[in-house]
Amino acid sequence: MEFTVQQIAEAVGGTVEGEATRRVAGLAKIEEAQAGSLTFVANPKYEQYLYTTQASVVMVARSLVLRHPVAPALVRVDDPYSAFTKLLEFYAQATRTNKRGVEEPAYLAATATVGPGHYRGAFSYIGEDCRLGANVQVFPHAYIGDRVTIGEGSVIHAGAKIYADTVIGRFCVVKAGAVVGTDGFGFAPQPDGSYRPIPQIGNVVLEDYVSIGANTTVDCATMGSTLVREGTKIDNLVQVAHNVVIGRHTVIAAQTGISGSCKVGDYCVMAGQVGLVGHIAVADRTSIAAKSGVQKSITQPGRSVQGYPALDLRDSLRALVVYRQLPGLLHRVERLEQAANAPEKP
Amino acid sequence: MEFTVQQIAEAVGGTVEGEATRRVAGLAKIEEAQAGSLTFVANPKYEQYLYTTQASVVMVARSLVLRHPVAPALVRVDDPYSAFTKLLEFYAQATRTNKRGVEEPAYLAATATVGPGHYRGAFSYIGEDCRLGANVQVFPHAYIGDRVTIGEGSVIHAGAKIYADTVIGRFCVVKAGAVVGTDGFGFAPQPDGSYRPIPQIGNVVLEDYVSIGANTTVDCATMGSTLVREGTKIDNLVQVAHNVVIGRHTVIAAQTGISGSCKVGDYCVMAGQVGLVGHIAVADRTSIAAKSGVQKSITQPGRSVQGYPALDLRDSLRALVVYRQLPGLLHRVERLEQAANAPEKP
Amino acid sequence: MEFTVQQIAEAVGGTVEGEATRRVAGLAKIEEAQAGSLTFVANPKYEQYLYTTQASVVMVARSLVLRHPVAPALVRVDDPYSAFTKLLEFYAQATRTNKRGVEEPAYLAATATVGPGHYRGAFSYIGEDCRLGANVQVFPHAYIGDRVTIGEGSVIHAGAKIYADTVIGRFCVVKAGAVVGTDGFGFAPQPDGSYRPIPQIGNVVLEDYVSIGANTTVDCATMGSTLVREGTKIDNLVQVAHNVVIGRHTVIAAQTGISGSCKVGDYCVMAGQVGLVGHIAVADRTSIAAKSGVQKSITQPGRSVQGYPALDLRDSLRALVVYRQLPGLLHRVERLEQAANAPEKP
Repeated sequence: MEFTVQQIAEAVGGTVEGEATRRVAGLAKIEEAQAGSLTFVANPKYEQYLYTTQASVVMVARSLVLRHPVAPALVRVDDPYSAFTKLLEFYAQATRTNKRGVEEPAYLAATATVGPGHYRGAFSYIGEDCRLGANVQVFPHAYIGDRVTIGEGSVIHAGAKIYADTVIGRFCVVKAGAVVGTDGFGFAPQPDGSYRPIPQIGNVVLEDYVSIGANTTVDCATMGSTLVREGTKIDNLVQVAHNVVIGRHTVIAAQTGISGSCKVGDYCVMAGQVGLVGHIAVADRTSIAAKSGVQKSITQPGRSVQGYPALDLRDSLRALVVYRQLPGLLHRVERLEQAANAPEKP
Repeated sequence: MEFTVQQIAEAVGGTVEGEATRRVAGLAKIEEAQAGSLTFVANPKYEQYLYTTQASVVMVARSLVLRHPVAPALVRVDDPYSAFTKLLEFYAQATRTNKRGVEEPAYLAATATVGPGHYRGAFSYIGEDCRLGANVQVFPHAYIGDRVTIGEGSVIHAGAKIYADTVIGRFCVVKAGAVVGTDGFGFAPQPDGSYRPIPQIGNVVLEDYVSIGANTTVDCATMGSTLVREGTKIDNLVQVAHNVVIGRHTVIAAQTGISGSCKVGDYCVMAGQVGLVGHIAVADRTSIAAKSGVQKSITQPGRSVQGYPALDLRDSLRALVVYRQLPGLLHRVERLEQAANAPEKP
Repeated sequence: MEFTVQQIAEAVGGTVEGEATRRVAGLAKIEEAQAGSLTFVANPKYEQYLYTTQASVVMVARSLVLRHPVAPALVRVDDPYSAFTKLLEFYAQATRTNKRGVEEPAYLAATATVGPGHYRGAFSYIGEDCRLGANVQVFPHAYIGDRVTIGEGSVIHAGAKIYADTVIGRFCVVKAGAVVGTDGFGFAPQPDGSYRPIPQIGNVVLEDYVSIGANTTVDCATMGSTLVREGTKIDNLVQVAHNVVIGRHTVIAAQTGISGSCKVGDYCVMAGQVGLVGHIAVADRTSIAAKSGVQKSITQPGRSVQGYPALDLRDSLRALVVYRQLPGLLHRVERLEQAANAPEKP
């Protein structure tokens, strides 16, 4: 896929300076760009690269005044970052996500229905009574169990497993290898010390614009629904246990674990490897630092917490400063004790 | 799937109070139950919901004395919780796990044998010389390598991978995306600083009633067997390294990691995100709190430990209390030092 | 697969003592070896087992002087450990990795090419314009997206997913369920608090002899490449985020997470459940203890660090020693305060 500088300028509403017929085959950061690629300068800090880059084309602000001659062709636009992002999206769609139609063999239960414009990759599986909306993409080896519904424009990536009765909204992304809706980890201890599984008959509901990371697991509820609300983005290898509710537009980084029946608010941010114990609530706009362990509900919105147990960020940072000095502190206490026990100086 | 109140009462040995012909289509918790659903009250704390619930039917104790009139039909039983659990199990079987027969295309090596009553989903793979018992279910995209044996009634979920020579007992569950029996992480450092893989020719043995969580990984032994004994339940995204032995009826929560050659006892409980270093032993009935890091063997049975390094739970909690006060403690030491160095008061 | 003692001796250049016609069917550690198996003694600590083992054959050093009569046949070699490792490799190849040819149904895009000697398992998927070298093995349910190149002798295990444009070198291993090259976790916050995905159009490059663990995730770069350099070995359930670069011959244990844009050096060792915050650098030959959280770049090569925040190993161990004594330390400070405030003794 190649475009001329002129074609790109027209696509982003820009003006060409230099060779309009040059051809571009890829996008790159300016510090890494090679011949044949298009890049941009938005931040003045990166302007220096403009005079040394190998890129064939650079998008720059209309207002930029060149301090030296430049080798690449320029496309002048109002906002180079926005224009570049638009091209990125276009490029990503053209090369990665333009799949349509059916690759055989693919399994579609007789009672399932799929909307227009869909993609079903080879070896994809769609079970009984499923309802898939328009333009849904189901990549190879994806498993969609019985009675699942998936809204318009959602993408189920390679080898993702969506278990029975899951409800997925519009424009969601479930990445490769994610497991959504499998049985929660619920066992009743028996008198002899063994465990008997508690049937998990609930489901998982993902509202619109939710993203579930690669190899992440989201368990179905015991009864009712494990719920991830609109716009929430979950990274790779995250555990979301049964009966959890996660609010809107919350972001959860990789390898975090959310125990059963937690309620997480809207607009929260959890960094990586965080853990929440079961049955707690986290208020809206809470920010939780990496590796923190949250053991109690956070009831006041907008707090930042860190550590295990999770403290207010400021308290945690202050405690960590002293933690590093612990051997010295012990030594100081020992000296005080020696002084206190020493015979009175004359 | 719908039942009348009368049918349910007969199934659980109960007595109907109210409309015996009402129909029920689902099960729910009493605080969330909608019209058409059946629920129960076992705990007196929840009795209040009985007078306001939308549920069509509620199972209650024979001894319960109503304090107000109720809208739902009642089914009186000896033990409402047990009766409800029985219905849950019945419901789960009827709707989720009643798969039988073969969906094509499915791959079955010529030398493999499968017992009566089995299910093999579309795109399931069963390798050479496998032996699968009666009523084994192999969901779509499950991979069963060569020479694997699986006992009666076990379920291998969608996209689980069972590598060569694994032995799985009766009534086990391997959840979606789990990887059992892949090569352990063993490398011999070479003089030039590179690493050469050490062949891993052992296997994994899961005894009866073991449950392996979604996307969990259990590596095969270098030689001999990585062993998970009877009734042990392992949650999602857990790592079990090569040559590990886990005892009977132990429970391991999500994202815990057990390093190579560890020996874990019977009736242990590990919470989430726990880590064990390699080559240690954990005694029977040990309880390990979430996020703990265990660096030494725990030899005395029945202890509770927490933290990193893992301390006795009581010691850990006491240390954490002081940890929170560290900045204050530093300040107090500074004041003592000032007082000690101050000129004698007159 | 059975061999005689004589055949084994010839294969490893050894000399038989005892019955050269005995047959051997497996390999084992000497403390676990059963009749019919071959084992070895290299470490004098294990010599004691030589006189009690059930093994049929034991490889021992030519120089070993027997202190008692032995039951097994012996094969005397220069270096029993090396000879045994050679047999292990031979055994592993013969039983586990000798797959060749194509099992149907398998999906191969019309524009893809595969080298001689390859294996494509049933339900494997190879997309448009892929280039696979000689002797590449693609196990069942593996997904290879468009334009992926895979070098000679590499193995893609069951259900691994390799996304578009990934470049894999020679003699790499990608274990079951690993996800390589899926979109990174990049979102631009919008004025209304929601997030918009930033297209990720880069790729992943694995150089030669790289190993990626089961269910590990390696995200593609936003632009350019996420890079894992030659010989690096990554364990199970590890997260490698977008734009990360990992140097040569580095070893990363299970459940570790490396955040976006980190640069990790050569010959590093990371234990399990380590976390690195984004955009930091880790110098060559750094060793990071289990569960550590690294928040700042480590610029000096060859350091060992531990803890959260990661301190020099020695400092961390000293701080941990005092941490355990915190309740006692608090008590000592309280006593000093009481003494300081007490009325002067007469």
